Amino acid sequence: MNQKEKYVLQLQKKARQRKKDKVFIVEGPKMFQELPKERLLQTFVSESFLENNRQFLDGVSYHVVKDSVFADLSDTKTPQGILAIGRQYEYELDDLFQAETPLLLILDTIQDPGNLGTMFRAGEAAGISGVLMNQETVDIYNPKVIRSTMGSLYRVPFYYSSDFIADINRVKKKGIRLYAAHLGGKISYDQMSYQMGTGFLIGNESKGLQKQIADLADHYIKIPMCGQVESLNAAVASSILLFEAARQRRN
Amino acid sequence: MNQKEKYVLQLQKKARQRKKDKVFIVEGPKMFQELPKERLLQTFVSESFLENNRQFLDGVSYHVVKDSVFADLSDTKTPQGILAIGRQYEYELDDLFQAETPLLLILDTIQDPGNLGTMFRAGEAAGISGVLMNQETVDIYNPKVIRSTMGSLYRVPFYYSSDFIADINRVKKKGIRLYAAHLGGKISYDQMSYQMGTGFLIGNESKGLQKQIADLADHYIKIPMCGQVESLNAAVASSILLFEAARQRRN
Repeated sequence: MNQKEKYVLQLQKKARQRKKDKVFIVEGPKMFQELPKERLLQTFVSESFLENNRQFLDGVSYHVVKDSVFADLSDTKTPQGILAIGRQYEYELDDLFQAETPLLLILDTIQDPGNLGTMFRAGEAAGISGVLMNQETVDIYNPKVIRSTMGSLYRVPFYYSSDFIADINRVKKKGIRLYAAHLGGKISYDQMSYQMGTGFLIGNESKGLQKQIADLADHYIKIPMCGQVESLNAAVASSILLFEAARQRRN
Repeated sequence: MNQKEKYVLQLQKKARQRKKDKVFIVEGPKMFQELPKERLLQTFVSESFLENNRQFLDGVSYHVVKDSVFADLSDTKTPQGILAIGRQYEYELDDLFQAETPLLLILDTIQDPGNLGTMFRAGEAAGISGVLMNQETVDIYNPKVIRSTMGSLYRVPFYYSSDFIADINRVKKKGIRLYAAHLGGKISYDQMSYQMGTGFLIGNESKGLQKQIADLADHYIKIPMCGQVESLNAAVASSILLFEAARQRRN
C-alpha cells in the first residue's frame, strides 16, 4: 500500500484524523456523483471499475488502485470500486434555521451509525431545516453513517454542539417550540400542532434523553404503543414525529 | 468445544439447520426472560454470567460454558453471557387475521435483517395483527433479526408464504384492503382511510415491489417527500404507514 492508500485507510477508521484534516470519505458511484464538485478532493478507483466505467470517469482525475488493495480500503464487504475524499461541511448553528418555518431534529447521544444516517435520510424527506447534535452523538462522517444517509448528508445542515444546553436555549429563543419524545409524555404526538417552528428532542437508543436536556422541552409527547413494546427504534420514532409534522404542514 | 456447543454454533450460522430442527436462538437476559416458557428447550450461560446472576438463574436448568467459548457462540461483539435454544413458531395464514380489524404488513423480499426486525418491533407497537412474507424475505430467526425485534418476535404472528400471490389473494378475500407503497402512487398515504381491515405491501430495499405483487394492491399510495430523497428506508416507510393507520383508528 502506498502513502495515499494508507491515508485513505486512516480516514476510514479514525474519526480524529478526519476531524483534524476536515475531510471525509464517500464510496460508490451514487455517493460520488452526488458529492458537490467543490467538495471533491481526491478520487480512487479500482482497476476493474476503471475498465468497466471509462465513460463514467470522463473528465474526472483519479488514482487507480489494485482490486485487492481497494477491497482493503473499502468499508463495505462488497466494494463498489470507487471512493472519494471530500471536504467536510462547516455549518453554523444559525444555518439550521434557514427556513420559513424551521423543523429541527435535536439529537442527544445517538450512538448507532445506521440510526443517525437513517434520520438524515428520513429528515430530508420530511423537510427538516437542520440537525443539532451533542458531541456524544456518533460522527456523521463515520462510513456507515454516510452510507445510511443515502446522500442526505450533502443536503441537510447539521451542527455538533460543544455547549448543548446553551445551544438548545438559543434555538428556543428563535421561537422554535421543543417537543421531547419521552416515556413520561402524556399527550399523544398527534394531538399537538407543528405548524410553527418545531424541534423534536430525541434521546439515546437505550437511555433516552438526559434529564437536563428533557427539561428544556416545552412539551413532553408520547407515541402511543400497543402490545408489550417498551420503546421504538430511535430512527423510527423520529420519522413518525417528522412525518406527522410534514402531514400537518401539507394539510 | 463439545457437541452441544458446536450445535449452538451451527444454529447461529445456518438457517437450514434451524429450519430442519424447528428451533432458534435468543441471546441476552431480556430476550431470555421474555421467551415463553413452553418454547424454551436449552439454556447456556457463561461462567462469569453464572457467577454474577445466581438469583436470575434460580429455577432454570442450564449448561455452563467457558467465557472464551461463549464469545465464540455469541452472534454479538459484546456477548451478554446467556443464550437459549427455543422452539420455532408455526402459525397458519389465518392466524394473521385474529383481530377485529386486521392490520397486516405484507413484505416482498425484505433482505436487511435490521429492517425486518425493526418492522416487527414498530409493527407490534402500531397494533398489527400479523406479517405475511415471501420466501425471499430474510429469515426471521436470523440472529440479527431476532435482536432487532426486541421481543416482538414472540408476540407478532407471521407467515412465510410458499405461494405468495395465492396467499395475498386469500387476504383480499377476507375483505382486507391492500395499499402498496409505490413510487407510482399518486394519492398521499394520509388521504386514505385505514379504519377497515388493512394490509400494507412493502417492497425490497432497492428494487421495490415486484410488479405482479404490486398489481394485487387495491390502491397505490405515496409518502410525499421533500428534497432529493428517492426513497425511504423500508422500516421507516412501514412505520410511517402503520402509525398513520394507528392514529386514524384511535381518533
